[in-house]
Order: sequence, then structure tokens, then C-alpha cells
Amino acid sequence: MLSKTVLIIGGNAAGLSAASQVKKIQPGWKVIVYEKGPYISYAGCGMPYFLQGIVSEFEGLLELTPETVVKDRKIELNLHHEVKSVNPVKKEITVKNGGTVETIAFDYLLLATGALPSRRGIEVKHPFSRRVFTLKSLDDMLEISALMEEQKPRRCGVIGGGYIAVEMLEAFQARGLETHLVHRRDQLANTFEPEISAMILEKMKEEGIALDLNRDVLEVAEAGEEIIVRTDKGDLIFDFVLIATGVDPNTAFLQDSGIELGIKGSVVVNKQLQTNFPYIYAAGDCAQTTSIITGQPAYVPLAPKANKEGFIAGANIAGGNEEFAGIGETAITKFADMGIARTGLTQEAAVKSSFDAVKYTFSTSNRPRYYPGGEELYCVCVINRDDGRFLGAQMAGPLDGVKRIDVFALLIQQKMTVGETFKLDLAYAPPFSPVYDPVILAARLGRKHI
Amino acid sequence: MLSKTVLIIGGNAAGLSAASQVKKIQPGWKVIVYEKGPYISYAGCGMPYFLQGIVSEFEGLLELTPETVVKDRKIELNLHHEVKSVNPVKKEITVKNGGTVETIAFDYLLLATGALPSRRGIEVKHPFSRRVFTLKSLDDMLEISALMEEQKPRRCGVIGGGYIAVEMLEAFQARGLETHLVHRRDQLANTFEPEISAMILEKMKEEGIALDLNRDVLEVAEAGEEIIVRTDKGDLIFDFVLIATGVDPNTAFLQDSGIELGIKGSVVVNKQLQTNFPYIYAAGDCAQTTSIITGQPAYVPLAPKANKEGFIAGANIAGGNEEFAGIGETAITKFADMGIARTGLTQEAAVKSSFDAVKYTFSTSNRPRYYPGGEELYCVCVINRDDGRFLGAQMAGPLDGVKRIDVFALLIQQKMTVGETFKLDLAYAPPFSPVYDPVILAARLGRKHI
Repeated sequence: MLSKTVLIIGGNAAGLSAASQVKKIQPGWKVIVYEKGPYISYAGCGMPYFLQGIVSEFEGLLELTPETVVKDRKIELNLHHEVKSVNPVKKEITVKNGGTVETIAFDYLLLATGALPSRRGIEVKHPFSRRVFTLKSLDDMLEISALMEEQKPRRCGVIGGGYIAVEMLEAFQARGLETHLVHRRDQLANTFEPEISAMILEKMKEEGIALDLNRDVLEVAEAGEEIIVRTDKGDLIFDFVLIATGVDPNTAFLQDSGIELGIKGSVVVNKQLQTNFPYIYAAGDCAQTTSIITGQPAYVPLAPKANKEGFIAGANIAGGNEEFAGIGETAITKFADMGIARTGLTQEAAVKSSFDAVKYTFSTSNRPRYYPGGEELYCVCVINRDDGRFLGAQMAGPLDGVKRIDVFALLIQQKMTVGETFKLDLAYAPPFSPVYDPVILAARLGRKHI
Repeated sequence: MLSKTVLIIGGNAAGLSAASQVKKIQPGWKVIVYEKGPYISYAGCGMPYFLQGIVSEFEGLLELTPETVVKDRKIELNLHHEVKSVNPVKKEITVKNGGTVETIAFDYLLLATGALPSRRGIEVKHPFSRRVFTLKSLDDMLEISALMEEQKPRRCGVIGGGYIAVEMLEAFQARGLETHLVHRRDQLANTFEPEISAMILEKMKEEGIALDLNRDVLEVAEAGEEIIVRTDKGDLIFDFVLIATGVDPNTAFLQDSGIELGIKGSVVVNKQLQTNFPYIYAAGDCAQTTSIITGQPAYVPLAPKANKEGFIAGANIAGGNEEFAGIGETAITKFADMGIARTGLTQEAAVKSSFDAVKYTFSTSNRPRYYPGGEELYCVCVINRDDGRFLGAQMAGPLDGVKRIDVFALLIQQKMTVGETFKLDLAYAPPFSPVYDPVILAARLGRKHI
């Protein structure tokens, strides 16, 4: 095959996974990565733990060094290069580097620009005060860290109800700050079943987090040394504020390109991760995906998807034919010593997708009754009444108990019923689980609901 | 339906699960359980942890009390009743209670007699010395416990190389005894891949266990206060000895009954758990099963199978039509702080079953590199070269890492390939796993072998 030029926009998980795959399969091809920021390939999911002080070295979060990328993997790497536009027909992009704008031609293009923090319409006055943050880039993280070190703030507000909010509430609380959750609903993000949300909020209260719920944030403004969060139920005063209200795909520069955009403006791709221009691919947080449960488009900006899509897009660009069928909406996090995990559909989402969805809950110990150290594991299951298949599961409980969400993730993907699940051969010994593993118990209890 | 009489031989996991199911579905039926010993429904898997001193109350190991069984569940319970024979044609059994032998008629019969320790031809002289043990019943456990409490022994030998041997070596070592493993091979039981066996043996050595390997035990004999284990490589002297060389199905009383027996004399059943007499069922450690991977008969006396088979046999006796397709040979245990798990076929077993089985090994951390507390998780995978499906997996590593064997158990059952497994949506966050979960990594590495 003749040598080709592959341009990759974005130097994080998806972009560099793809770049590495292309060079591995087609060492003679030219692979050029453009990254807007100063860093590549950092562990974004580790940032809350750096800010908590659990991860001590900033450098630990850098997965790949530029040296490895350039010298070992022979990838051309351009930091501080922002791609301003894509012309899919001419197969060109324009790239800005300082004052210079260049046009570069490609044979294949990968869009891997990730996501940007969404502020959901919250107006921030004095955005340069550096005491109102979002947490998406390493720079964000370093600024928050510097503020905590240098200004010794006392009070902080976290606006939002998703994973980052949960993790940063833990981090700030652990750092000894007076920590407030400011959220527009009385439940966390609707990715959590209400029962799980209630358990997390209860745990937050126990740990001393102030819950300012059911508040619409109207504005975040600076007033002298303080940050005022104006809400429909009055003002809240903090020393600094983190806005953690989710992310949007970073695709504004594609708006008029002719590349098809979907949910929230994410790039629409087929199973091969091709856009409507077959030589242009997209992967990671900028790309739309499909729910393997409903078959419907979904937008799920999480790291495992980004890494795998990068790998697959790279393999396909290099001549392969890999497919990525989509995601199961599996996620895990923790708050203090409570593990929290989810997969599949909530009952609400399942009903919206026209399933006759039944929900049931139970709690069980993660050890046999007689074995010491057992802790309560709380489970929410959603099954389809018609055929008894599992549609979703969520768990809250001990850290070493909730990773079994993976078993649910897999059996939901395989469209397994409660009857089939009951008969699974899962591992049992007293130091690891009760004789009816919580997954088996979920199936046994589910049989009553169909 | 007219009232029926259901006789159940054996009052442990399978027997009482079945009895409870029958009464739940057919409250009007007569359900009579015959148990040879003094106890019912005890947690056999908890016995090593009682002997280690982790489980402090003997009563904790009793799952169901006779009161619950008789009063709440309306099951007739006969302790100290040994069934001597079954006449499948006349639908009768003979039962011995003290000096009395009775004949009882049934409409349905469930064989749930469990297993008995196998001594694999090891001759034990002076078997009533009470210093040479097996560990199968609560009485065995209480005798070992009494010996340790009362006689303060110093040296003990464990003969065998399976799960009970591993668990009891941990227990005796933790109790401060000079503990020896005496085994006929230089590897543990062949249910473990050689690499995993080597890691366990290395760990045992580190913990101070003496490894007397490659020794054929010829005889175990008493000599004054001591127990001599005569081997082909010389005598070993202990204060007491545990023979843990596996179990055999407890079916000698069925020898001439006409009920079909299979591997090691286990009762042959179909998917409905019926024997060759459709009104006679078998469940638990006395019953043969099927490998869901090879479709071949298998004998796997483990608790989850017993519980589920009891449930299913009970439901079917009561008029249901449940099927049990078989087992995946999933098992888990630990030695000291090392978790050990397996599922599916070893390479050796896979080759015997005519698979073109490739084995590969890798080790990975159970956390991202930068997150504290990560520990090495060692994995052995066996895949089928023809189609890339997983056939088996084994793990050794941190206690909170090895339960993910369940994901392998399920994907092996579902005949999933390395390519499909790589794309699974498993849960990721730094406190729980690296971004490429060990299961995903196993798939990624497996792609190179097909």
C-alpha cells in the first residue's frame, strides 16, 4: 500500500490509541497528531484523586510522554496546535499555532477532540477570577490545586450531580474544606436510580457535606474575596466553586463542515467509527455511540470507550475491519467508603424506551452471615417483564463488592434472563461472597417479578 | 393435584433447598427428609475458617435450624436416619434408625446424599486414634478443633493438593502450628494451571509452610504420641494429620439399585435432574453434571451447584420444568492474602477435549499505575485458536481482584471470543481497576494468539 497521511485531532486517550495502532499496523504511514493544549495522554479520571491528595505526583497522571510518542512510536506530535476547521471534501484541515494558520491535507482524519465542560447555562461573572472552576484539563486541576495550597480556602461549593461532582465532593471534604453540594434537583444525576441517589446523599450528609438541593443556580459571581452562588432559593457564599454540570462534545469547529453531528453535537459514526465521510473517523468523547441495549444513539463520554474506540478507529484506518457495537452505560465510582456502580438502563430510561420495565431492590451481605467483615450491598435491578431479561442494575455498598456490576454489564449485553442468570456458575468461597452471590440472588428474586 | 409423598435423602444444601421449594409450590404435599447425621444444612465451606479461628461461633455455620425446617416450612425431618437402599421400581426406600429398619414408600425421591472424603488408597492404621482426620462433616471439624484446643499439638501434616488442603494449610499455619503440605506431585491439584500452582506453592513457602512434595503416601500410622506418614521418600512425623485428597459421591447404597451411576459413582441425571427413573431426582455432591464448555459429563462437588440443583430439583418435583445445563468449573479460594480463582478448562483439559488450545499469561495491576494500593494480578488464559473463544481463565493476586473471574465464567459460557470481549463495557474508575480492566486486557493480548 502507498504511504498515507493520517491526521489526528486530539492527543488524549482516543487520539493516541489510534495513532499508535496506525503506526503499529502501517509503520510507513505518516501519522500527525494535533493537540490544542500543552499535555497529551493524561489520566483525567485520576484528577479528583490528585486533588484529594491520594495521588501525590502530578507526573503520575501522564500516561505517555511526548518522547515515547515521538521517538518510540514515530508519531508526529504538535502541541499547542488548535484545529479550526475541517474541509471533508477537499480533505484538508486548518490548524492554528500561535499567530500562524496552516492548511494540511490528509488521506484519513480522526476526530478525537474530546469534550468540554458544560455550564448548562449557568452564567459566570468574572470568569478570570480563578476561583470558579470546571475540571476537565490538567490545567484546571493544577489551578484548583494551587488555589487550595496557596489561598487556604475554607468553604467550597460544587455545582452538579454527576460522577465528577460526587468524586470532587469526596476530595474537598477529605481535604478538610466545608463542602457544599449545590444541585438543581433533590436527587443526583438521573443516571443514578433514585434509591441509589438517596443512599449517596445520605452518606454525604453523614460525612458532613452540606446539601443545598433543589436550587436553580442563576449566576455565579465574585464579591470581594468571596464567590456568590445566586440561586432561586437565595445566595450561597463560598471561597471557591467548582461547576461540574457535565460535558459537551468538543465539536463547535465542525458545525459547518458537513460532518454529521448528533446528540449534543457529538459526531455521528457507524460501527466502524466512520463519519458520513468514510475516510473521516471519530472516537472518544467527541463521538456519538449506540446503546447496545436499546440500539438507540447515546452520548457517553467515559474513558474505556475512548480508549477502545481509539484502538478500533486506528485499526480500521490502517486497513482493518473492526466493529464497535456500542456501550452498556456501565460506570463505577465511590464516595468515601461507599462504592457506587451502574450498568444498563434505569427504570425511567427503560420505560422511555418502551420496555415494560419492572424495578426491584434488595440488600444482601457480600459475605456469608457467619464470616466476619461482611457489609451490606444494596442492589437495584430493572428487568423486562415480557421476557425476564435484565435491562439494568445498580449497586451501592462496600468497595470490594460493587465491581461485580461487570457481571450484570455482560449478562445484560447478552440479553440474559433472570432464569438463565440464576443458573450461572459464579465463584463462591466465604472470603469472597455468600453462597448465593448477589448476582444470583438478584436473578432468584427477579423470577418473582415476571 | 392429589397430595404426593416426596422423600429426600440428605439434609444439607441440596436436600433442604429442594424440600423448601416443594413445600413452597405444593404446600399440601408430604415432604420427608432423612439425614444420617445429627446436623442439617451447615456451611461446609466455612469449616476451614472456623478452624482458623476467623469464624468464632460454631452455631454460625448452621444455616437452618431444625425448628425453621419443621415449624416454619412444614418439612418432616428425621435425623440419625440412614437410608440403606432404594427400590426404584417399587418406589420404596429402607431406612435405618438405631436398631430399627423401616420401609417407606414414595411418589418422588430426591437423592441428596452429598459426598464422602476419599482417601485415594491411603491406608490409615488405628483410624480411631482421632489424630488422623478428614474434613467433611461438622463432627470432623469439632474433633480437629478439640484436638487443637486440648492437646496443643505442634506439628501437623496436610495430605492433598486441592481447595481443602490449601484452605486448611492456611488455617493451621495461622494457628501457629508447624504445618506441612504432603503431596504426591510437585504441583497442586490439576484443577490449577501449573503457573498458578507454582505461585501458591511459593506463597506457602514464604508463609513458612514446609512443602513435602513428590511423595507418595504409603500409610498413615500411629506410634505412641506421634503420627507417622510413611512415604516413598521416607517417614514424616506429625502430631496430627489431615487427609484432604478429595471426595467421592456418597452413593454406595445405590450400587445395585438400578439407578444409573457415572463418574466416580455419581448419579447420572438429565437437565431436569431426573435419574433414569423419572420420579427419582438427584442434586448436589452426589450427582453428576455436565461441563457447559465441553458438553461432557463432569463431577464437581461445590456448594453453589448443590444449592441451585436443590432449588431446581424441588421445583421440578413440584411440577415445574426447570433445566440445569451444567457447570463452568468456576471456583475461588485464598491462601493468606493471595486470592486464587479459576473457571473453565485448563489448557491440559482443553487439549484432552480436542480443542486447539493456546495458553498465555500476563500480569497487570488491579489499579492504574498512579493510584496507590495497586497490586499485581496474575492471569492465565486459555483460548481456542480456531475461533478465538475463551476456554478457561485462572487468576492469582489481591483478594479484591480475583472475583472478576465471574466475568470470565460468564463470557466463557456465552462462547465469547477475544474480539468480542475486548469491546465489553466494563466498569472503570481508578479506585477499582486500570482503564483496561484485566478482563479487557486479557482479550486484547489474546488477539495476538489467534
